[in-house]
Amino acid sequence: MSYFIENSDRVHQATLEKLEQRGVTVKDIAELVMFLQKEYYPDLQLEMCAEHVEKVLSKREVQNAVLTGIELDILAENRQISAPLLNMLERDESLYGVDETIALSIINIYGSIGFTNYGYIDKVKPGILKELNKKDGPMTHTFLDDLVGAIAAAASSRIAHSIQPPSVK
Amino acid sequence: MSYFIENSDRVHQATLEKLEQRGVTVKDIAELVMFLQKEYYPDLQLEMCAEHVEKVLSKREVQNAVLTGIELDILAENRQISAPLLNMLERDESLYGVDETIALSIINIYGSIGFTNYGYIDKVKPGILKELNKKDGPMTHTFLDDLVGAIAAAASSRIAHSIQPPSVK
Amino acid sequence: MSYFIENSDRVHQATLEKLEQRGVTVKDIAELVMFLQKEYYPDLQLEMCAEHVEKVLSKREVQNAVLTGIELDILAENRQISAPLLNMLERDESLYGVDETIALSIINIYGSIGFTNYGYIDKVKPGILKELNKKDGPMTHTFLDDLVGAIAAAASSRIAHSIQPPSVK
Amino acid sequence: MSYFIENSDRVHQATLEKLEQRGVTVKDIAELVMFLQKEYYPDLQLEMCAEHVEKVLSKREVQNAVLTGIELDILAENRQISAPLLNMLERDESLYGVDETIALSIINIYGSIGFTNYGYIDKVKPGILKELNKKDGPMTHTFLDDLVGAIAAAASSRIAHSIQPPSVK
Repeated sequence: MSYFIENSDRVHQATLEKLEQRGVTVKDIAELVMFLQKEYYPDLQLEMCAEHVEKVLSKREVQNAVLTGIELDILAENRQISAPLLNMLERDESLYGVDETIALSIINIYGSIGFTNYGYIDKVKPGILKELNKKDGPMTHTFLDDLVGAIAAAASSRIAHSIQPPSVK
Repeated sequence: MSYFIENSDRVHQATLEKLEQRGVTVKDIAELVMFLQKEYYPDLQLEMCAEHVEKVLSKREVQNAVLTGIELDILAENRQISAPLLNMLERDESLYGVDETIALSIINIYGSIGFTNYGYIDKVKPGILKELNKKDGPMTHTFLDDLVGAIAAAASSRIAHSIQPPSVK
Repeated sequence: MSYFIENSDRVHQATLEKLEQRGVTVKDIAELVMFLQKEYYPDLQLEMCAEHVEKVLSKREVQNAVLTGIELDILAENRQISAPLLNMLERDESLYGVDETIALSIINIYGSIGFTNYGYIDKVKPGILKELNKKDGPMTHTFLDDLVGAIAAAASSRIAHSIQPPSVK
Repeated sequence: MSYFIENSDRVHQATLEKLEQRGVTVKDIAELVMFLQKEYYPDLQLEMCAEHVEKVLSKREVQNAVLTGIELDILAENRQISAPLLNMLERDESLYGVDETIALSIINIYGSIGFTNYGYIDKVKPGILKELNKKDGPMTHTFLDDLVGAIAAAASSRIAHSIQPPSVK
């Protein structure tokens, strides 16, 4: 370790900008959180979900994961990646799991209770995840869809850690 | 590390016996694999799924995870665990994630592509997972349900690594 | 998920008590943090390390990991675990990695930068880790030594995230 | 999942070529394995270590991790990565842990017993790891050093799973 540390505000700002450039808003991710959590917390509001998403996005590890994944998506889109990795990224190859690996590092920050939610929305693909998985457009979202699902799962874990649900004795 | 190594056949045998004692057969897990994979491999047979499950169960890390998790379930059932851990295990507490942590170590052996399948069946709870999650009986399956889901997800990854699906060019 | 949530203060208190009962103080862990970090932060004080250790110990996932691991150590010591798992725990078997798996879940909360520090002190075994690894006494610390190393590594990551080192521009 | 699967031989071949292009041979990694394991297995030969390294490199997940990490190193070197990620990769920033995250996915395939070895050589930096960490040259090895350490740790775990050490009863 060289102990160079990048300016935190700059990294945070870049993360939010990159997500927006790739068509993902905090509200999109908050809607995934609502999808995952509304059955457990009947009073949950979209605004509260958005606050939890923003807190997740303020963590440096999350920012690093998002910036790295989106960069790889863009580089694949621009065909600046060499073969055979390019081919795997362009086509979201079945045995390529580095996207899930990086996504998991986001979930881990809020503990292992988030794995289930991540796997579930990655399979069901509600809301923005459906958009990101359309393979017919010019964009590559091999990493972004997993990152977005992981941020939503992490925000759900954050809610579980912060709210006492109605049934708690 | 002390470099004592337990007899491998003994560990393998104990794993299969413990699963059976707790009401889980290889066929039960193979059915979860079918549930997860049949849409991708139309020709997939239950027997083939069972073979992959058996291969997963022959891995020492999987055996260690299964033996440890089932032991904790039984000890909780017999109330040989001290509070407050006992309470968390008996009631599968919402913030307790050691069961998911141990389950994940099973999936990791076959790479990160298994996370999605694990999360999905943990949420949908088909077949044996529904049985294990009935909270009305005298048994505690806080660890076992996650272990079984993870073995099924790992076997699904193993299939993906070993079969070329019809659409592969 | 059943949405039963155990009282947080109770879990926190139990964690500190169990560690103390097993011979590990916050100061012991703080000394491991000093060992890991003093070369990077010349002004680091033991008291500051202890504060970071306490913050790590206030996280629910860390508490769950510590309570589960110590419980397994005690149950092995009292021979309340069935064979062959008992044998593996008593002798810290070479292929048994559930202790490392659970320890890793502690490190993950502060991101992947802690892996290196965990591996390093687990090998070098300074301070309290040396004590815990003496295999000649009546106690079993198969889990505890990994938990303590992981808490020290997590506290080191927490310092890296909170302090700007002298060389930062 | 789209069930496109890239040709396995092609991915394997590309992995070996990229490592060689970046100055890392199988023998370099085998020497790290010797460094880690010789005290436990007095009869261990470099050739045997090389065989285990080759087996690790034949796993698709390992190949994916290596190809992705080296690609990011090269793209950073060529300044084809956007800021602020470029800055973090060029300078191996202290809070950037995606390199460790990807490295860990290599170790996980052989179970959690490899974490310690990974952390240890990442800190001590013997052999090729010292070369890769010289920050004075024109090359960026932010990912490669972690990948190489992880392959050596994974090969060490593979040895532990395959050889019965002399002290085993």
